[in-house]
Amino acid sequence: MESTTLSEAVPADGREDAPAESARRRRTRARLLDAAFEVFADQGVRAASVETIAEAAGFTRGAFYSNFSSKEELFFALMEREKTMRLEQLNSGVAQFLTPLVGEHGADLGDQEVIQTITRILELQSDDRRWWLVQAEFQLMALRDHSIAADYLRYHDEFFSDLTEIVVEALSSARRRFTIDPEEAVRVIAELCANGEARAVLADDQRTFTERLSASVPAILLALTERI
Amino acid sequence: MESTTLSEAVPADGREDAPAESARRRRTRARLLDAAFEVFADQGVRAASVETIAEAAGFTRGAFYSNFSSKEELFFALMEREKTMRLEQLNSGVAQFLTPLVGEHGADLGDQEVIQTITRILELQSDDRRWWLVQAEFQLMALRDHSIAADYLRYHDEFFSDLTEIVVEALSSARRRFTIDPEEAVRVIAELCANGEARAVLADDQRTFTERLSASVPAILLALTERI
Repeated sequence: MESTTLSEAVPADGREDAPAESARRRRTRARLLDAAFEVFADQGVRAASVETIAEAAGFTRGAFYSNFSSKEELFFALMEREKTMRLEQLNSGVAQFLTPLVGEHGADLGDQEVIQTITRILELQSDDRRWWLVQAEFQLMALRDHSIAADYLRYHDEFFSDLTEIVVEALSSARRRFTIDPEEAVRVIAELCANGEARAVLADDQRTFTERLSASVPAILLALTERI
Repeated sequence: MESTTLSEAVPADGREDAPAESARRRRTRARLLDAAFEVFADQGVRAASVETIAEAAGFTRGAFYSNFSSKEELFFALMEREKTMRLEQLNSGVAQFLTPLVGEHGADLGDQEVIQTITRILELQSDDRRWWLVQAEFQLMALRDHSIAADYLRYHDEFFSDLTEIVVEALSSARRRFTIDPEEAVRVIAELCANGEARAVLADDQRTFTERLSASVPAILLALTERI
């Protein structure tokens, strides 16, 4: 049934906003992405098969392939969706907690204000360790598979480029700037978070993302920035 | 033949310096570790079987098991050997390039001297991207397998604790100290290096470890430290 609708001649190009994409097709893709994430988290990205993902979403294998050419292409669509969500969460956190403090034209903030603001923004960020694990597994697949390495790197680099832009602008409104290359600084802080996730899983640390990181992230951000 | 010797009643406890361990046993273990590393790098840690590792080393499956109780135990022995080697390389780099500059009692160094010294020390470090890849794969196995998670974390934490001690002492002799928690600073710098390895593999970047990192590692080390 779904597969009839899915056979509409819409290129499976991963763009959610392709004009010819129907609402129904968007829902189908979203269900496949949701199901795939659960299967990846449960079985591991390498072990997960297209059949299992299609079945978990309640579709046929054919329906899968009329939306994504491969498990890898689906993973890139997942990365794109996650990237959009994370950047929106960060933008929203900045608008909610930083902008009211510094106003339209920016203002100096004391270290304590910086620390509190970062903690509040961190609290808004999604806290699903499974995403971190699944992405790390996909990265390792990309490291061993030249056919997806370039695409993986491009998605990853786009994320950090967009993330850096938001962070640099937020810092600037608080009259601060990085003392090392901004994108490298942002990558280092993101790696600190990812590393914290790994350690939390290994040590079975049940504290939330914010509880674990509210000491270290503000400290390193202050250490890597200076007042303008 | 080898397996007769290997059946000596020596506990396979991973300690290279166990008194009862014969020179022959040490050579056997070293050959198994070398072969395992090649197999891990080639096939991936998860896919590599004990049979393949034993065969690559020229031993029987029985010989493997009289030395290591499992593939995982062998991996911990590999981590131990790698840790010892890396800490020795770092100590040797400090003795060769930093100590002559600061003498017995320490001395201030200019930023340029710090940068040059770090670059020289980095050049001494082993530059095998396969080790980084193999360790990342093992970490992911540990993240999904509670039976090895605690041991993995312990090995990992010991490494960073020892590494931090060396770095803090070296900094101190150059009259500098970290402005954030020292072990966290060292982890962040190590992650920057690991991340750089991942990007180099993905982008097929043929430059050496030092060529890629001689700009970023000294910059972040300076940014995260202050003069005493």
